[in-house]
Amino acid sequence: MTDRATAEELDGSDPLASWRDEFVIPDPDLVYLDGNSLGRTPRRAVEALQQVVEQWSSDLIESWWQHDWLNLALAVGDELAPLIGASAGDVAVHESTTVGIFQQVNVALDLHDRPPTGRRPVIAVDAADFPTDRYVSEGIARLRDADVRPGLDDLDGVDVVLRSLVDYRTAEVADLAGETRRAREAGAITVWDLSHAAGVLELDLPASGVDLAVGCTYKFLNGGPGAPAFVYVAERLQARVTQPIWGWFAQSDQFAMERPFEPRTGIGRMLNGTPPVLGLTAARAGIGVTADAGMGAIASKARRLTAFGLDLVDRFGLESVTPRDPRRRGGHVAIRHPDARRLHEQLTDRRVIVDRRDPDILRLGMSPLTTRFTDVYDAVTVLAGLVNAPPS
Amino acid sequence: MTDRATAEELDGSDPLASWRDEFVIPDPDLVYLDGNSLGRTPRRAVEALQQVVEQWSSDLIESWWQHDWLNLALAVGDELAPLIGASAGDVAVHESTTVGIFQQVNVALDLHDRPPTGRRPVIAVDAADFPTDRYVSEGIARLRDADVRPGLDDLDGVDVVLRSLVDYRTAEVADLAGETRRAREAGAITVWDLSHAAGVLELDLPASGVDLAVGCTYKFLNGGPGAPAFVYVAERLQARVTQPIWGWFAQSDQFAMERPFEPRTGIGRMLNGTPPVLGLTAARAGIGVTADAGMGAIASKARRLTAFGLDLVDRFGLESVTPRDPRRRGGHVAIRHPDARRLHEQLTDRRVIVDRRDPDILRLGMSPLTTRFTDVYDAVTVLAGLVNAPPS
Repeated sequence: MTDRATAEELDGSDPLASWRDEFVIPDPDLVYLDGNSLGRTPRRAVEALQQVVEQWSSDLIESWWQHDWLNLALAVGDELAPLIGASAGDVAVHESTTVGIFQQVNVALDLHDRPPTGRRPVIAVDAADFPTDRYVSEGIARLRDADVRPGLDDLDGVDVVLRSLVDYRTAEVADLAGETRRAREAGAITVWDLSHAAGVLELDLPASGVDLAVGCTYKFLNGGPGAPAFVYVAERLQARVTQPIWGWFAQSDQFAMERPFEPRTGIGRMLNGTPPVLGLTAARAGIGVTADAGMGAIASKARRLTAFGLDLVDRFGLESVTPRDPRRRGGHVAIRHPDARRLHEQLTDRRVIVDRRDPDILRLGMSPLTTRFTDVYDAVTVLAGLVNAPPS
Repeated sequence: MTDRATAEELDGSDPLASWRDEFVIPDPDLVYLDGNSLGRTPRRAVEALQQVVEQWSSDLIESWWQHDWLNLALAVGDELAPLIGASAGDVAVHESTTVGIFQQVNVALDLHDRPPTGRRPVIAVDAADFPTDRYVSEGIARLRDADVRPGLDDLDGVDVVLRSLVDYRTAEVADLAGETRRAREAGAITVWDLSHAAGVLELDLPASGVDLAVGCTYKFLNGGPGAPAFVYVAERLQARVTQPIWGWFAQSDQFAMERPFEPRTGIGRMLNGTPPVLGLTAARAGIGVTADAGMGAIASKARRLTAFGLDLVDRFGLESVTPRDPRRRGGHVAIRHPDARRLHEQLTDRRVIVDRRDPDILRLGMSPLTTRFTDVYDAVTVLAGLVNAPPS
């Protein structure tokens, strides 16, 4: 059953429905299916930002100690950790996702046993992966006399694999444990990019044998525009990790200034410079709402939202490239149409906000804390009307 | 004349006095001389943050175009540029100062003609410079098989010089043009760290022949805690620059996702990933207040504040390590005392906030838009009382 009454019933019985009230939603009629690009604004973020600005103006430099800003990047990491199955002490939140990927691929190159003499290190990255993942790899290859190999089918001779857990176009989910193992058996360390996974999939990085991961907090974690990224290092590896960008927040005794660099023990050695307090404050709010709602319930609703969307896609005869197996599917439904660009504009004009990835993909992002089944119904219905309408 | 009436007169005739009203100052009696570590909160920052949060919640993903967030890192760079004598298009604002230093030292290594075959590249950094500058250099040396040479006296065989324009302890200002030239004549490119210079000294980077610079916006520019850093690349070099961290915001056609990395023309190639919109918004406010007040007037008041402070230091028989020549002096006065740690605590108890750098330095930061001559008078007077008091 895929009519609007069904959507309303699903909203009515949705155990997460009331969490939408935790967000600032000025226009309740706007159909927003782009929370996988920029999540909505948690009310807590508004309050927390007001509070941190008051701290800044009142307590000034002493805020670094009084409000523990010095430890903020690690405290927010501790709060994020359970959302990916990790423990406090395994995650730091700071800088951009790009910098996080740069750090982790360098870490992986250094963790790896040196390749046989005379061979250059090899980084494997899927040619269809998100561009930044490829760009960062190319840049590191240039810097370190390594090679980038496109494609992940053959990992023979590969030292580092960089890959997204959720494909940013199709929403296909890779086999986290199986692919980590396959790479390891081929002699490679995998850096997982969790940007489209964190906050929408139930993950257990330690149980999956993950070594290194990085991810974004402004998508399903609702951390705010350009929110800082997170980096994860398995506890068993932390003592061996050397990251490339050495700053005073990674120094073992930060304010003892007359010594050579000596990295902190634990995840703190992944830090660089002074943390972005405003961005971290908003990110913390988004992470907190997610943790309080519960990652299990959120992941469950994501599967139901995307299933409902795919049913509608079928009913209207649209084409989706998103997997039908809910275990292999992230938090969005990708629809392929040759007129994607025109349809995207027409949807926007009708206040249905989705995402486009050229040349022919429309992404309908379903962010479980704010997306209603009626949003999915309305978006696909309007889209189907546009697809099937005679050209104007 | 260094009594309090003099200080009050100086405040009364201070042409910048009214700019203090542009800042949120909950406790007007607090003597805050640490604006060189964390500047005060511009009222505009409070308003701008409220506005950007409204944009986030109302316009969501469309804000990237509607409010030009896509270009924010460069727009804020354009507004900062005149404060260092640069032009629009020469500055980007993003990431942390640590990442900026990492980028620029790598850029300098690559800009440089390759050293003679068989010789490792050499980075020179003053052993007394701010720790992050040394740490980043050590990290890059490890990554790129280079050597770090401590000390700047002998630049023979040096490829890259990394140095602060203003010494973070003594406030001594290096000769920007002369030292850039001396390094160039020795065959080295200089990366200038302007963290303690931007927003308090009148600078003209192009006229000084500067190639590359990086700086902090949360000190004298009042950009907020952990505000993003700025990077400057001389216009004549931009086409030749290759920075190490390649992300999609540096790609020439950002949303064409199927191509190898091809950097943007101009300063945009220094960008990495998605910019920190909240942090940039606050930084923009601090930069805007500075620009509106006028860098010449601010630099002039800084010289008068520090001169007044040094007169008081002399009157009370304290020892300062800050240069007497106003052309060689940044925006703080450093006082050396073996009991610096105890004095720092006692000053804090008396609500006089200064900065300490172990083992024996107290820094009295004088931020011209918010520091009054009476603040300087009260701070040094209270300090002198503590120094000369019998032990309790």
